[in-house]
Amino acid sequence: MAKLHFKYGAMNSGKSDTLIKTAYNYAERGLATLTVKPALDTKGEDWVVARGGARRRVDVLVAEGEDLRARIRAAAAAQGDQPLHCVLVDESQFLSPAQIDQLFLVAKRDDVSVICYGLRTDFLAHEFPGSRRLFELADNFEKLPTMCRCGSQAEFNCRVVDGRHVFEGDQVAIDDGAVVTYESLCGACFMREQDAAGARVIG
Amino acid sequence: MAKLHFKYGAMNSGKSDTLIKTAYNYAERGLATLTVKPALDTKGEDWVVARGGARRRVDVLVAEGEDLRARIRAAAAAQGDQPLHCVLVDESQFLSPAQIDQLFLVAKRDDVSVICYGLRTDFLAHEFPGSRRLFELADNFEKLPTMCRCGSQAEFNCRVVDGRHVFEGDQVAIDDGAVVTYESLCGACFMREQDAAGARVIG
Amino acid sequence: MAKLHFKYGAMNSGKSDTLIKTAYNYAERGLATLTVKPALDTKGEDWVVARGGARRRVDVLVAEGEDLRARIRAAAAAQGDQPLHCVLVDESQFLSPAQIDQLFLVAKRDDVSVICYGLRTDFLAHEFPGSRRLFELADNFEKLPTMCRCGSQAEFNCRVVDGRHVFEGDQVAIDDGAVVTYESLCGACFMREQDAAGARVIG
Amino acid sequence: MAKLHFKYGAMNSGKSDTLIKTAYNYAERGLATLTVKPALDTKGEDWVVARGGARRRVDVLVAEGEDLRARIRAAAAAQGDQPLHCVLVDESQFLSPAQIDQLFLVAKRDDVSVICYGLRTDFLAHEFPGSRRLFELADNFEKLPTMCRCGSQAEFNCRVVDGRHVFEGDQVAIDDGAVVTYESLCGACFMREQDAAGARVIG
Repeated sequence: MAKLHFKYGAMNSGKSDTLIKTAYNYAERGLATLTVKPALDTKGEDWVVARGGARRRVDVLVAEGEDLRARIRAAAAAQGDQPLHCVLVDESQFLSPAQIDQLFLVAKRDDVSVICYGLRTDFLAHEFPGSRRLFELADNFEKLPTMCRCGSQAEFNCRVVDGRHVFEGDQVAIDDGAVVTYESLCGACFMREQDAAGARVIG
Repeated sequence: MAKLHFKYGAMNSGKSDTLIKTAYNYAERGLATLTVKPALDTKGEDWVVARGGARRRVDVLVAEGEDLRARIRAAAAAQGDQPLHCVLVDESQFLSPAQIDQLFLVAKRDDVSVICYGLRTDFLAHEFPGSRRLFELADNFEKLPTMCRCGSQAEFNCRVVDGRHVFEGDQVAIDDGAVVTYESLCGACFMREQDAAGARVIG
Repeated sequence: MAKLHFKYGAMNSGKSDTLIKTAYNYAERGLATLTVKPALDTKGEDWVVARGGARRRVDVLVAEGEDLRARIRAAAAAQGDQPLHCVLVDESQFLSPAQIDQLFLVAKRDDVSVICYGLRTDFLAHEFPGSRRLFELADNFEKLPTMCRCGSQAEFNCRVVDGRHVFEGDQVAIDDGAVVTYESLCGACFMREQDAAGARVIG
Repeated sequence: MAKLHFKYGAMNSGKSDTLIKTAYNYAERGLATLTVKPALDTKGEDWVVARGGARRRVDVLVAEGEDLRARIRAAAAAQGDQPLHCVLVDESQFLSPAQIDQLFLVAKRDDVSVICYGLRTDFLAHEFPGSRRLFELADNFEKLPTMCRCGSQAEFNCRVVDGRHVFEGDQVAIDDGAVVTYESLCGACFMREQDAAGARVIG
């Protein structure tokens, strides 16, 4: 029976890059895949874009509330006779819990492997709705490693607004003209920035 | 910097057994550990009890609302001069999110390794409060494998009441005289039992 | 297609204990397994014996030069109609390379999972013949962790003769009346003992 | 204490690509690394070249018989005052066992992390000299996955000469005008090609 995988990692851990490489490897061996992205992630529109510049066209750009299993079936049928081998999902933290359930059915009822790439937590160290359901249902978790400024593995995504590390705000940053970036930090460095800001989202 | 580990597994994956073996290995090398258990888990009282019969006395039996980091410090001080090497937590899914934060501080401020053993989800495939916070904060996840009746890896804990697989009820079963057990199932077999019961907790 | 797994670990990492627990888990779910041990390992005779005292009768005690796949087939047939689900091998480092090939065929031609437990290296940090072939052919490697005296993970098996760490001798210690034990050490502590003995088996 | 890692994978598993991405991640955080390659691998000369086109200049191109630890020290000193954080080694299967020992000392005496990328076996399913020593000494193994034509994970590197899968020849192909490529295969498909060729390198 096919499996539902969750490959999670902090910002800049190469999630989109790995997705694109995996899709390419399947194609090279003549195996059909579909690439899925939540429409909520407007960056890149209907492309998966990796930091290094690699790009891949999204097959299913799924809106909130849509039945993702039905969309995948339709897209697979449109590809013709070749059996679908694997579904690759970018930014899976932005899917709804119901859509993660639908991906679980793609694996367990349709016997098609599903690999979800995504963040595990937001900048306040809380699970996204999609990642929560993935931690409940996925067969396997794999960390895509990236580094903190101190050389340790980074686990947290710290929001930086106009150069300052911030510990309050909406889960998805609203575009209000400020320059918003993220820094991937290990637990110890996250605590240090939290202390410096007089905040307390952990501890 | 010390790490916070989450070793999760379905029922009967040998979590308590592994905890006892790990504590024994540390002791054999002269390294101090503390064993922690939430008081919410009344089974075994202040002992960690493995299926095979191995037992280990709990050092810190922690009630809901107690400061777990303070309890650990006090217990370490009571052991004398030897530096604390590792904290081992049984049934960690029953800790509160705040107590998981306190364990995170034990790792990141006190530089003591913490290994949490626990279930990831309840019988309805929802995270426990303690496991949710562990998925948000732990440095590493490791699955302790166990088998489904079909030979695949089991991921879900299905509740069996008086011989029937059930899909409703409280997260922790109330003792009302019924015989309550759990069966560890893979995703496909969980779906099969869910369908047979006309329930729909996944999908 | 079934897989050939190599679960390696230093002395006292609980290899036999894990084997016994795994066999028990399969049996509990009504799935047939066979337990294999090389006759070269005379300790325990035809029993797998774990440090904690758990024991399990060996189904196939295989001598050097014997065809292990044929022995497994015969033992499976003798168990009756139930299909064989998994072969569990203790002390697999003592099998010959040809016997590891035969286990590979059990997985890839007979579609039966094989889990080999064993040491990766001898006391001079050289692969055993069986572990070398496993590193060449196994689908997956998994480390069963154990600790060094310093609290780090132990990777090496240092021979201790009459209380002294030694760095020369036969791969399998000859019984000449001396008390031979092994200490599991991390790389740094192994180097320290090697330096103290004026030896140089690494570096 | 720093660790020696072995990240192995079949052909086209993205080993060089991962090395380049890792070096880039370190640099982005202001942490110094060195990139090492055996001169035996003449492809790309003193560049690490990934399939997708990414490239990275090699800092230490090491010949057989050279002291790799001395070369690393000299290269680190030439970079100036910044402490060396990590050594990244491409095509590590081509290093000599003595050079792997030298990398072990870089980790365990100089406390600098070393990540070796390489193949585990040649086209006849035998370890390379460098990979053998890595299996003996490395702290951790990690498989970089790639796919077989059948969709399973590929573990073997089958040599293809003028379109035919071959099972004899030198470990490193001699350039005699024939077109030599490699196909990454799973165990079952490797056996199928071996049978078709009437060869028997496994089993």
